[in-house]
Amino acid sequence: MEFAAAHGRVLATHIVAPEAVPGFLRATMDGYAVYAQDTFGASVGAPQYLDIRGEVPMGVAPDRRVAGGETLRVPTGAMLPEGADAVVMVEYTAEHPDGTLEVRRAVAPGENVLAPGEDVAAGATLFPAGRRLRPQEIGLLAALGVTHLTVYRQPRVAIISSGDEIVPLSDQPGPGQVRDSNAYLAAAQVEAWGGLPKMYGIIPDDFSALQKTLVAAQKESDLILISGGSSVGARDLTLHAIKKLPGAEVLVHGVALRPGKPTILAALGPAGPKPLLGLPGHPASAAVVMEVLGRPLLLRLAGFTEQPAWGRNVTAKLSRNLAGASGREDYVRVRLRPEADELWADPVLGPSGLLSPLVKSDGLVMIPLGVEGRFKGEAVVVQLFGGF
Amino acid sequence: MEFAAAHGRVLATHIVAPEAVPGFLRATMDGYAVYAQDTFGASVGAPQYLDIRGEVPMGVAPDRRVAGGETLRVPTGAMLPEGADAVVMVEYTAEHPDGTLEVRRAVAPGENVLAPGEDVAAGATLFPAGRRLRPQEIGLLAALGVTHLTVYRQPRVAIISSGDEIVPLSDQPGPGQVRDSNAYLAAAQVEAWGGLPKMYGIIPDDFSALQKTLVAAQKESDLILISGGSSVGARDLTLHAIKKLPGAEVLVHGVALRPGKPTILAALGPAGPKPLLGLPGHPASAAVVMEVLGRPLLLRLAGFTEQPAWGRNVTAKLSRNLAGASGREDYVRVRLRPEADELWADPVLGPSGLLSPLVKSDGLVMIPLGVEGRFKGEAVVVQLFGGF
Repeated sequence: MEFAAAHGRVLATHIVAPEAVPGFLRATMDGYAVYAQDTFGASVGAPQYLDIRGEVPMGVAPDRRVAGGETLRVPTGAMLPEGADAVVMVEYTAEHPDGTLEVRRAVAPGENVLAPGEDVAAGATLFPAGRRLRPQEIGLLAALGVTHLTVYRQPRVAIISSGDEIVPLSDQPGPGQVRDSNAYLAAAQVEAWGGLPKMYGIIPDDFSALQKTLVAAQKESDLILISGGSSVGARDLTLHAIKKLPGAEVLVHGVALRPGKPTILAALGPAGPKPLLGLPGHPASAAVVMEVLGRPLLLRLAGFTEQPAWGRNVTAKLSRNLAGASGREDYVRVRLRPEADELWADPVLGPSGLLSPLVKSDGLVMIPLGVEGRFKGEAVVVQLFGGF
Repeated sequence: MEFAAAHGRVLATHIVAPEAVPGFLRATMDGYAVYAQDTFGASVGAPQYLDIRGEVPMGVAPDRRVAGGETLRVPTGAMLPEGADAVVMVEYTAEHPDGTLEVRRAVAPGENVLAPGEDVAAGATLFPAGRRLRPQEIGLLAALGVTHLTVYRQPRVAIISSGDEIVPLSDQPGPGQVRDSNAYLAAAQVEAWGGLPKMYGIIPDDFSALQKTLVAAQKESDLILISGGSSVGARDLTLHAIKKLPGAEVLVHGVALRPGKPTILAALGPAGPKPLLGLPGHPASAAVVMEVLGRPLLLRLAGFTEQPAWGRNVTAKLSRNLAGASGREDYVRVRLRPEADELWADPVLGPSGLLSPLVKSDGLVMIPLGVEGRFKGEAVVVQLFGGF
């Protein structure tokens, strides 16, 4: 792929350094290239003196070597001449009119220089497959000239809206109708996690229309999301449409999550099974199921093997008691509030049919299955919304 | 702008809800629309009985009202008929063959329904200007049909490489030469923070070539980055080229940061002053200056007014003593390591001329000016690389 587009992508192969960085003994300070031993014992009171034999220009090889008692001026980044093994910083020197350099501080061999291969040795394995390319990885690849990369394809995610009550965003909903907001929320989540959403529009609660769309989505996508009708009738129809597809299998119908119980997990065949995630109809339920099940599924499809939790998880103190959901893993929306050097998590309560509590929240606190609840003042882990 | 591209952008105006969500009294459970008072006192031992008068289909207005003693079947998401103010969940009912509903649990008015405007009231201010649109904001805007948005332009960031020793990525560096890696690292950082990088290529250490490029970049960009030559000579030339431009002003030359001392901050005129950030030549210094100075500058240009620190900052325990830099704010690269329920920050030491310590790191620990250092075991704030 084009190197300029590589940032944020995930490597599909490991990367071996084709050459050493730096490729030569390089000055890291402005000063004088010396044979370190010539400076031993130098101090302000008892300086050493060297003959200045010229200067190393930037970007070229020095045109002469440094013999004992000699030195060349070197700018930061320049190549050291043969015979030199250190740089004396300009601050600890004085040039005399007769071409002599007064050195007021000793340097050790290797001081103020980078050795060839000190950053990266030729042949070293730089990155494993599955590594997401951050700016610093891009910088190191650029330094090595490794600009042809094999990365994972961004997962193509089909988003199907179903439900007779759903109307396009541009429509004014009539009585009993709502706009197709869950599909757009899910599409933005897919984007945030590195996927490429593709909208399949609103499919009426009709068996054959639903099947036709599922077949197309199965062919064209790596993951299929159905932003489902909220009623039990619509869910039953979706399940039925999936089950009757050749090679399809419903793996899970109903999960022990709150919110998010009426979730469907399925594999759509026949041409290579593709995962399908059927989202609940309530917006908060759908958003939570995407965070808890959709995100890891998507990152797995994107080739991620390294998923550090920091940055996504923060610890905060709970500002009130929270009861768990009996028999289900409970996800509570919380808003974060810094106060007096501490971070507090304020639960944002409200039915899962509402969008606004989700907008007021920064993340989720999970109360595990079998745990009665969390106490006010307890430190809890908050899973932040969005991002990797 | 097109709504599908709005995710992640920053609002330039505040948003007022043009209508209420939901727009009608909506069932949040599958069940029966009732006048709650008709169910009062109902229990398994003493059920109440109602007449089933039909069903409300999805997506349309009910064709009749509910009078005292009557009920209509309602699916989740459907509109409640006039006269009804609650929904009895299907689990607490039984339909008898004579068309009677047995209700085994009482409901309160408003139970299992969402009132019109309960999510968002018409005329409410939804979001302030400066709000970055996350998936849930997109969902709420979609629900309201607010798809025409005024967002801030993504800052256009000019990236100029200077230095006689710099060669393009595609070249094999000769003795004393290095590839243009800092520019690509900076470009990826700009992308990560929502900017649009534009590469201006490698400009030789030549006064008029540098000035010509600065003039073009000033016209075409919102922020100018110079990924500078690393030597004092190259820096002096850059400074000189900036100072001699009409309407330009060097604001800062040298900052009390370690690494990052030889940083330049300037304003380039004359056609509306544009900020310029001159980056140090060492890769780690350039990356740190971008994190510490470039990022807030970019977010400000992008219109951000809300910049929560969570997600970017995590707290960890330092795994060894760290001495601060005398007279400078010190930024130490650290790698995060979870161990036994705790997060540890392992300092990744190494000269700022190296890229590999940056690649091994997850973020930075700052030791403030005037602080001697940090002790092993002390809790420190780690600023994570990348992301907002």
